[in-house]
Amino acid sequence: APVDKEVDFANYFCTYAFLYHQKEMLSDRVRMDAYYDAVFRNPSHFLGKWLAFQKRWVFVRKFRRAPIGFQRRLSTHASQGTGSGILAIWSAQAGARKVYAVEATKMAEHARQLVKENKLEDVVEVIEGSIEDVTLPEKVDVIISEWMGYFLLRESMFDSVICARDRWLKPTGVMYPSHARMWLAPIRTGLSKHKMEDYEGCMKDWRFFVEDTHNYYGVDMSCLTKSFSEEQKKYYLQTSLWNNLHPNQVIGTAAIIKELDCLTATVDDILNLQASIKSSINAGDTRFCGFGGWFDVHFRVFLLHPSALVHEGDDLIVDFSMSRSKENHRLMEVELNCEIRQSSGELIPPSRKKFYIE
Amino acid sequence: APVDKEVDFANYFCTYAFLYHQKEMLSDRVRMDAYYDAVFRNPSHFLGKWLAFQKRWVFVRKFRRAPIGFQRRLSTHASQGTGSGILAIWSAQAGARKVYAVEATKMAEHARQLVKENKLEDVVEVIEGSIEDVTLPEKVDVIISEWMGYFLLRESMFDSVICARDRWLKPTGVMYPSHARMWLAPIRTGLSKHKMEDYEGCMKDWRFFVEDTHNYYGVDMSCLTKSFSEEQKKYYLQTSLWNNLHPNQVIGTAAIIKELDCLTATVDDILNLQASIKSSINAGDTRFCGFGGWFDVHFRVFLLHPSALVHEGDDLIVDFSMSRSKENHRLMEVELNCEIRQSSGELIPPSRKKFYIE
Ligand SMILES: Nc1ncnc2c1ncn2[C@@H]1O[C@H](CSCC[C@H](N)C(=O)O)[C@@H](O)[C@H]1O
Ligand SMILES: Nc1ncnc2c1ncn2[C@@H]1O[C@H](CSCC[C@H](N)C(=O)O)[C@@H](O)[C@H]1O
Repeated sequence: APVDKEVDFANYFCTYAFLYHQKEMLSDRVRMDAYYDAVFRNPSHFLGKWLAFQKRWVFVRKFRRAPIGFQRRLSTHASQGTGSGILAIWSAQAGARKVYAVEATKMAEHARQLVKENKLEDVVEVIEGSIEDVTLPEKVDVIISEWMGYFLLRESMFDSVICARDRWLKPTGVMYPSHARMWLAPIRTGLSKHKMEDYEGCMKDWRFFVEDTHNYYGVDMSCLTKSFSEEQKKYYLQTSLWNNLHPNQVIGTAAIIKELDCLTATVDDILNLQASIKSSINAGDTRFCGFGGWFDVHFRVFLLHPSALVHEGDDLIVDFSMSRSKENHRLMEVELNCEIRQSSGELIPPSRKKFYIE
Repeated sequence: APVDKEVDFANYFCTYAFLYHQKEMLSDRVRMDAYYDAVFRNPSHFLGKWLAFQKRWVFVRKFRRAPIGFQRRLSTHASQGTGSGILAIWSAQAGARKVYAVEATKMAEHARQLVKENKLEDVVEVIEGSIEDVTLPEKVDVIISEWMGYFLLRESMFDSVICARDRWLKPTGVMYPSHARMWLAPIRTGLSKHKMEDYEGCMKDWRFFVEDTHNYYGVDMSCLTKSFSEEQKKYYLQTSLWNNLHPNQVIGTAAIIKELDCLTATVDDILNLQASIKSSINAGDTRFCGFGGWFDVHFRVFLLHPSALVHEGDDLIVDFSMSRSKENHRLMEVELNCEIRQSSGELIPPSRKKFYIE
C-alpha cells in the first residue's frame, strides 16, 4: 500500500520539529564523533567539492523508547536532509563548495539560522521539503545522512536515502556512510525475568479488574482475557528493547545477517530480510535468554520466554526474517526460528518466535 | 481547514484500539459510577425504549498526560460510540429495546464479544465506523456518550456527538449527559515553583550543550537559544496540567465560563469560548499562582510565572478565551487576561497569558 504522506507527517516527522529532540541527537557523543571524524579526516572529499567514507560501523541510536509515532534523524550533506544542519555545516567547514541541506520539517528554519550564524550561507543552502519531492539545481558528489534507526532499519528512512542517491548522486559520487552491517548473537540477561514479571503483574491486575467490574457494574469481561493477554504479551514479551549489553552477556558467536553497500542497495534489498545462521555457544553452562541484534556498538535485544539452559559447545541454528509492519511501514517485525543442537547430541526442537520493533 | 481523516486516525483514534487503555477508563470509579447511576436510576428512559439524564456534573478524566497523539473515549447508547461497549450494555440491561453501539476503532470487535458474552446480542448492535459516516436503521430516543476531554473540550469529540444528535436523535429524544459547565477560579499551588525549576534546569543544560558543541565540534548554536527557550517555555510553563486540587487551594470565588445544553449546542458554540468574569479573593494573604479550570470535581491548572501576592478582598477581573490549535483541531489554546484590583485601591495592570491544553 502506498504511504499516506500526511499520516507519515503526523506519525513520524512531527517529533523532529522539536529542538529538544535535535539536541538529544546532537548530545550523542558516539554518533557525533563518528560523523565528525568521517567529515574532517577525509578532506579530499570535501575540499573543492565533496566526500566519501572509509568502512566504519559507527552508528548509534540514543533514544530508548519511541512514543506512539517515533523519533528519527536524517541528513545529507553535499545534498540531502539536515535536521539542525550539523552535518551540512561540518561539510562546509571541511571545504565543500556547495551543500544542499534538505529537511522535511520546520527544523529547516533553525538550520538556516545556524548556517547564517556560522557564516556559511554562501556555501550551505537549506531547502525545506522532503527529499522525495525537492529539486536540486545540480547533481552532487557526496550524500551524507544519518538515517539509521533501531536495529539499523527501523523507521525505513534508508528508502529516502536511496531515493536521494538515485536522483541526485553523480555516477562517480560517494555515500556517507558507505556500508552497514547487521549482527545477531545469543545473549543472557536479567531483563527476561523482569519483563515476565511485568507481564504477570499486569495480568493479575486484569483479573482483579474483571472481578470488580462484575461485582460493581454487573458486566462480565472475562471473555476479553485472551485478547488482553495477547495485547500485553506483545507489549511486554514480544517487543524488542534498546539495551546496553556488556560483552560477557553475549554467550555465543555473532553472525552477520545483512550487509549493505549504500552505493548500490535497493529498497527491495531491505524490504524483507532473511538469514540462516549458526552460532556456537562459547560461555559455560548458562541461560540462553534471547538474541542481541546490533549494528556496531549498541544493542537491541529480543527476549525468549522462557529462556533455555545452554552449554559451552552447543550450536544454535537460527532462521531470521524481518519485514515491515503492515500498519506502519516505518516499524518492523522479526521472526526468529531457533533450534538448539546440544554438544551432548540432544536436539531441542526449533521454536518460532515473533518480535516487534516498535 | 478540513480535517484529514487518516491523520486523525493516526493521531487520535489509535490509542483507543488498545484494551489497556479502555481498561484504564473502565477502572475510573468516579466516571463509572456517574454513568451507572445515570442509566439505572432513570428506568423510564430505558424501559421499553431509552433515556435522559438529570442535571449532574460528574465527568472525570483519569489520564494525566497524553502521548504525541492522545487518549479519548466516546460512547452512545441507544445510538452512538461505544469503546469496550460498557454504556451500551448497561443501557440494554436497564431495559432498552434496541441499542446501536458505534465505535470507530477495532475495539468494536471486542465490544461485540462482550455483548455476546453478556447475552445481549438481541438488543445491542455493534457497528464499526465513525459516527459521521455510519447509517443507523432508525432514529433513536437517547444518545449516551462519554465525550469529555481535559477541561471538557479537549479532543473536540463533542463535535461528533452533535453530528450524531442532528442525524439520529428523534425530536423528542434526550442526551446523556444533558448539560455541561466549565468553571474557572484562582488557585495557589507549589507546582508553579517546580515547573519553573524544571524549565530553568533545562535551560542550564542547554547552555552547557552550546558550550560543548562549540568546543568539541566547532559549531556555534547560541543563535538557537531564544527558539529553544520558547519551545521549553511552552512545554514547562505554558501547558496546562491535570491536577487534583484540594478545595483550600482555591483562593477566590469560582465563575462559570461556559454552559452547554447538549440538546441544542452547536459546533459554533464551542469553537471559540470567550468569557469576562470577576473573582473575589477569599483567602488571607497568599500567592496567586494561576487558574484552576474544571468541569465538576476534577481540575486543570493554568500556572502564572511569576505568581502574584494577593489579599482577602482583592478582585480579579479575568478575560478568558479558548480556541482550537491551528495544527491539531483536537487540542486547545487558552488566553487569560487578568487584572488585579486590590482592596487597598491599588491596581495591578492586566497581564495577558497564553496556555496550551496539550
Ligand atoms: N524523506 C525525508 N526528506 C527530508 N528530510 C527527512 C526525510 N526523512 C527524514 N528527514 C529528516 O531527517 C532528520 C533526521 S535527524 C538527523 C539530523 C542531523 N543530520 C544530525 O545528524 O544531527 C529529521 O530532522 C527528519 O525530519
Ligand atoms: N466520531 C466517532 N465515531 C465513532 N467512535 C468514536 C468517534 N470519536 C471517538 N470515538 C470512540 O469513542 C470511544 C471513546 S472512549 C469511551 C468508551 C466507553 N463509552 C466508556 O465510557 O468506557 C473511543 O473508543 C473512540 O475510538
